[in-house]
Amino acid sequence: MPPQHVDRILANGLVLTMNCAFVLYSPGAVAIRAGEIVDVGSVTEISESYQADDVVDCQGLVIMPGLVNAHTHAPMTLLRGLADDLRLDVWLLGYMMPVEREFVNPEFVRLGTRLACGEMIRSGTTCFADMYYYEEYVAAAAADSGMRALCGATILKYPTPDAYSYQGSLRRCRDYIEHWLGNALITPAVAPHAAYTSTPEILYACVELARTYLIPLKTHVAETAQEVTDNIREHGMRVVPWIEKHGLLDARLIAAHCVHINEDELNQLASAGAGVAHNPSSNLKLASGMAPVRRMLETGLNVGIGTDGAASNNDLDMVEETRLAAFLAKGHSGDPTALPARDALALATRQGAHAIHLGDQIGSLESGKKADLIIVDLGELHNTPRFVRDPDGIYAQIVYSGKSTDVVHTMVNGQWLMRNRQLLTLNENEIVAEARDLAHHIDRFLTKRESSPLSKLLVIGGVKQEESFEVQVKGRLGPDALNQVKRALAHPEVTVVKESLYRQYDTYFFFDTVEPDAERLRFREDQIVSERGEVKDARNRLTLIGHSSEREFPGAVMLSRARYMAPADKSLRFYQEYFQPSSTRQVDKERHRWRIRYRTTDFAINLDRLAQPAMPCYFLEIKSRTWSQHDAQRKADLIIELITLFGEIDTVETIPDGYVDLDHEA
Amino acid sequence: MPPQHVDRILANGLVLTMNCAFVLYSPGAVAIRAGEIVDVGSVTEISESYQADDVVDCQGLVIMPGLVNAHTHAPMTLLRGLADDLRLDVWLLGYMMPVEREFVNPEFVRLGTRLACGEMIRSGTTCFADMYYYEEYVAAAAADSGMRALCGATILKYPTPDAYSYQGSLRRCRDYIEHWLGNALITPAVAPHAAYTSTPEILYACVELARTYLIPLKTHVAETAQEVTDNIREHGMRVVPWIEKHGLLDARLIAAHCVHINEDELNQLASAGAGVAHNPSSNLKLASGMAPVRRMLETGLNVGIGTDGAASNNDLDMVEETRLAAFLAKGHSGDPTALPARDALALATRQGAHAIHLGDQIGSLESGKKADLIIVDLGELHNTPRFVRDPDGIYAQIVYSGKSTDVVHTMVNGQWLMRNRQLLTLNENEIVAEARDLAHHIDRFLTKRESSPLSKLLVIGGVKQEESFEVQVKGRLGPDALNQVKRALAHPEVTVVKESLYRQYDTYFFFDTVEPDAERLRFREDQIVSERGEVKDARNRLTLIGHSSEREFPGAVMLSRARYMAPADKSLRFYQEYFQPSSTRQVDKERHRWRIRYRTTDFAINLDRLAQPAMPCYFLEIKSRTWSQHDAQRKADLIIELITLFGEIDTVETIPDGYVDLDHEA
Repeated sequence: MPPQHVDRILANGLVLTMNCAFVLYSPGAVAIRAGEIVDVGSVTEISESYQADDVVDCQGLVIMPGLVNAHTHAPMTLLRGLADDLRLDVWLLGYMMPVEREFVNPEFVRLGTRLACGEMIRSGTTCFADMYYYEEYVAAAAADSGMRALCGATILKYPTPDAYSYQGSLRRCRDYIEHWLGNALITPAVAPHAAYTSTPEILYACVELARTYLIPLKTHVAETAQEVTDNIREHGMRVVPWIEKHGLLDARLIAAHCVHINEDELNQLASAGAGVAHNPSSNLKLASGMAPVRRMLETGLNVGIGTDGAASNNDLDMVEETRLAAFLAKGHSGDPTALPARDALALATRQGAHAIHLGDQIGSLESGKKADLIIVDLGELHNTPRFVRDPDGIYAQIVYSGKSTDVVHTMVNGQWLMRNRQLLTLNENEIVAEARDLAHHIDRFLTKRESSPLSKLLVIGGVKQEESFEVQVKGRLGPDALNQVKRALAHPEVTVVKESLYRQYDTYFFFDTVEPDAERLRFREDQIVSERGEVKDARNRLTLIGHSSEREFPGAVMLSRARYMAPADKSLRFYQEYFQPSSTRQVDKERHRWRIRYRTTDFAINLDRLAQPAMPCYFLEIKSRTWSQHDAQRKADLIIELITLFGEIDTVETIPDGYVDLDHEA
Repeated sequence: MPPQHVDRILANGLVLTMNCAFVLYSPGAVAIRAGEIVDVGSVTEISESYQADDVVDCQGLVIMPGLVNAHTHAPMTLLRGLADDLRLDVWLLGYMMPVEREFVNPEFVRLGTRLACGEMIRSGTTCFADMYYYEEYVAAAAADSGMRALCGATILKYPTPDAYSYQGSLRRCRDYIEHWLGNALITPAVAPHAAYTSTPEILYACVELARTYLIPLKTHVAETAQEVTDNIREHGMRVVPWIEKHGLLDARLIAAHCVHINEDELNQLASAGAGVAHNPSSNLKLASGMAPVRRMLETGLNVGIGTDGAASNNDLDMVEETRLAAFLAKGHSGDPTALPARDALALATRQGAHAIHLGDQIGSLESGKKADLIIVDLGELHNTPRFVRDPDGIYAQIVYSGKSTDVVHTMVNGQWLMRNRQLLTLNENEIVAEARDLAHHIDRFLTKRESSPLSKLLVIGGVKQEESFEVQVKGRLGPDALNQVKRALAHPEVTVVKESLYRQYDTYFFFDTVEPDAERLRFREDQIVSERGEVKDARNRLTLIGHSSEREFPGAVMLSRARYMAPADKSLRFYQEYFQPSSTRQVDKERHRWRIRYRTTDFAINLDRLAQPAMPCYFLEIKSRTWSQHDAQRKADLIIELITLFGEIDTVETIPDGYVDLDHEA
């Protein structure tokens, strides 16, 4: 039979197929046509069966599948080294989120992805699984660089740089998927950020998208012990059962991290055919813990290796990550035979491809798979000598002594992306220059911000972000206010869940430099009192309040956002000295509070009487919080209904956030 | 004042002094004369005060102290990748020790050190603390390459490639120290390998050497949990109190590993001013555990970072090792603020220098210290972008994103060892070619050996090496043998410690391919019997026996060596099939055994009567074991005395190892 014609033959290298049998060819060759691997074999076999105009001599080099980075946030490479060695809350709320809010836009995402792709192509990664905002720009930039990528559009309950609400994110995501579905390089995916940053509605909607379009669903699972504790406290179960309950295990799930999962959860994930992305560097650096990788593999889970974002790692070096995975599995299990080099490299290639549900296309050098491969030089001093007695020694050499800088050529889909360590699809100097400019702007922004109340609050610790949306209405009532409220709450559609009496002593701190998300800080001492006026308990809290009003609905119903709360275990004096407000103001009141349910929806009813500044009237406040923009609208409508139950109300007015602005009129 | 003349000025770089205050100069400069740092400061300060013919422009680069590798075994770089992912006993007894025994000689040590130095110079290490055999050749090769090194000559109780006995090692060590003391680059040191591979005499002798010459003493301390358990069982205390008891804390101690030390031990080491070499990669890869680095630092210990030997790590990359130290400290403590990048880099430089007792000479860029420094390019993609808001961000960039391949120039003692990534003192091609040749020989040796009885025995597990030296004498006694022995043991200089009766069923396995240290394998079933002949207990053991006789002392006293023992929990049939001996031979006997003390020395007295092959006479055997060559000689002398106590003995003859060769005459 005459030899078949192919586009290209890579010849004379040591070929690591990384197939299930770990077949090696030495010297071997790979025949490539139309972006696919036609055949892999010994040099003799391939040269007898195929001919090509382009025969690449790989003498002395290793030909192997490109590495699969199973979890990253490519654009965050622009935030590499922004802030390190910090507590997670300080890092996230103090640096990442404010910077993302301010800087993340399509240009940022495009540049960050180009930077990430350049670094990954250099270090031998040919495919990455991503999760970020404006994911359509990640997809476009990755495709432009020639890389293969699974790009997950992030959905979370907080407002994001690319959407005002999660409903907006879901809409964007659907458009994005429809646009990219079927692309040769890009696999679109939906990425609810994590169970704890989602509502059940978000999770259901994401599963629906994933099942409609038959695309992967990528999410963070049980990254920290805190996440598990919180999930048990709030939902009575661990994280995997919780996401299973919301259908995530019915999708092609990619579960990033899985540091804190138990045997049952391992089995649940395995039965569902889920993939796990193991991120050893990130989990160590953020002190999240050490994932039970060995048990995962014993359970038959498909485990891939991920670098996570460079903002936390701080690089995208899969060679290093694979080495660390192998080292850590041994150190963690106490068994030096755990995760040997060959198996670790399989995680970074074939199994990683399966973990991100692309195992039928990539991850090994086999006929019919895509020509995604790298060619590696093991001739440097740090790789000397080389023992050949044990053919498997080559895996130890790559994993334990190899460096990502040993990669010489990188190919994706049959196209060279790097030859002789020169990037062919990206302009490095341009990327470096643009990234440097951006870093300069971010530096200036953060320098200005580092003395902000939010930054200072974060340093104290325990800060939590409240629900994104608060709807409320206020009105004045006359001397019969209490009876008026009681009559209203007797309405058959109202159920009183809880009733309490408080004395609230609020001190508001005002600042010269006002930030949109941190206009004023409130120190509140909440005294819980009995009906006879005896103090039963007290608690102190700090609340950082942003825009007092973001939007008004009809009927003076207000919507506000962006509040951060923290427990206050020190004295008011301490906080005054620590935050150094330019002025303060005091508001003291008695509050009678009912937590009610009206038409299956929860509201708080507050009846307030101000002592300082003293006011003759009562104030009625009806409010509710939610993560959902639609839900905020619905609740605003219900509030307008509710207020009619209270009969005559003097005025329904716009009194934002406490009564701190009232004294002007008092 | 006119500017002073210096040899060289490194100008316009970002200078990290790594001094105690972590002072940075940006742009900064370093003035160097006669191998020493004359001054460090801003470019303006240095250019006003100094002039030089050679001004090196370091624009856009970082100038920092060279990295200090606080623990390695440089020549073992030649064994990199020889065998990985194995149990420690299999790795050590099955690969490292046989290969070292066969191949380690001055040429091996010289080549391995050159290879190691090349890799270290490339990756930014300017000084390393070593421990190996033929250490004088390590010292010479390191000095030839221009590197600074602390070279510890290894002493252990086993025979070593460079000495027949530990007495020989100690003699070599003294000569070596006297030759190198006062060298500009080399600090000689004495290195008892570890407490568990030393005898008290070895430890005392090493401390004496260290104190006589005021040199550091380097040893492995509490590397594995097993070591601690064994030490407690054998000596009733943990490892640090044990070495303290033998004076090691009175020397300038460098304690490598310290993975399993408790608070008391931390404090003991700290009060003694000891240095600790932390080897995170090696400890993970060999599954030894995770050292309590954070607690060490809180206790005020000087901790350095080491790569350990490349046979276990598998590289000498201090950048990677420093990153892992920082990551692991966080992951292990559960605190992401543990060991921040700046502190981690201090361990790799200034504190590492203090840990190896060279802190007054190197480790930081300060006036009067040696000009040991590296110049690093942080302009690559994997280091982009760079944030400058926080001046300390530079440490995170180097430690978390940097690669050892970012090092551009390396200088030791004012001399360039690498410029623009080209080694100046070593011929890389030559080293690679020679190492490749050697690897080929080692591969052949191991291939031949991989089916050897010792290799197979190691796979079974539980193998221990017996004391190096066994002295024994045998003689035949007539029918009154028992009374003859009893009379002898009644001698006032003899104390009987224990008396037992055995039936011993020995099966000897013989092999076609005989190795010097594995001539035959014995499967022994030892039945312990009562005086009335009832079997009370039984145990089975495998013993691999080397040269039947290595040397004869006067009076037919024999010395033999190299025995490996393992418990045998499977059947004789299993071992026969597993080891596939070419022939076997059976020796059954009754043994009456007395453990006695004669002139304060322990001996075993065996009175044997052979059942198979049946022999009419009794055999008397007197034997003792020891780690010490001198002690073997002394015991041989005592045996000659002892034998006279037994009165008339038919013949005193050479019957090695059991009675397996007797049947020829029977």
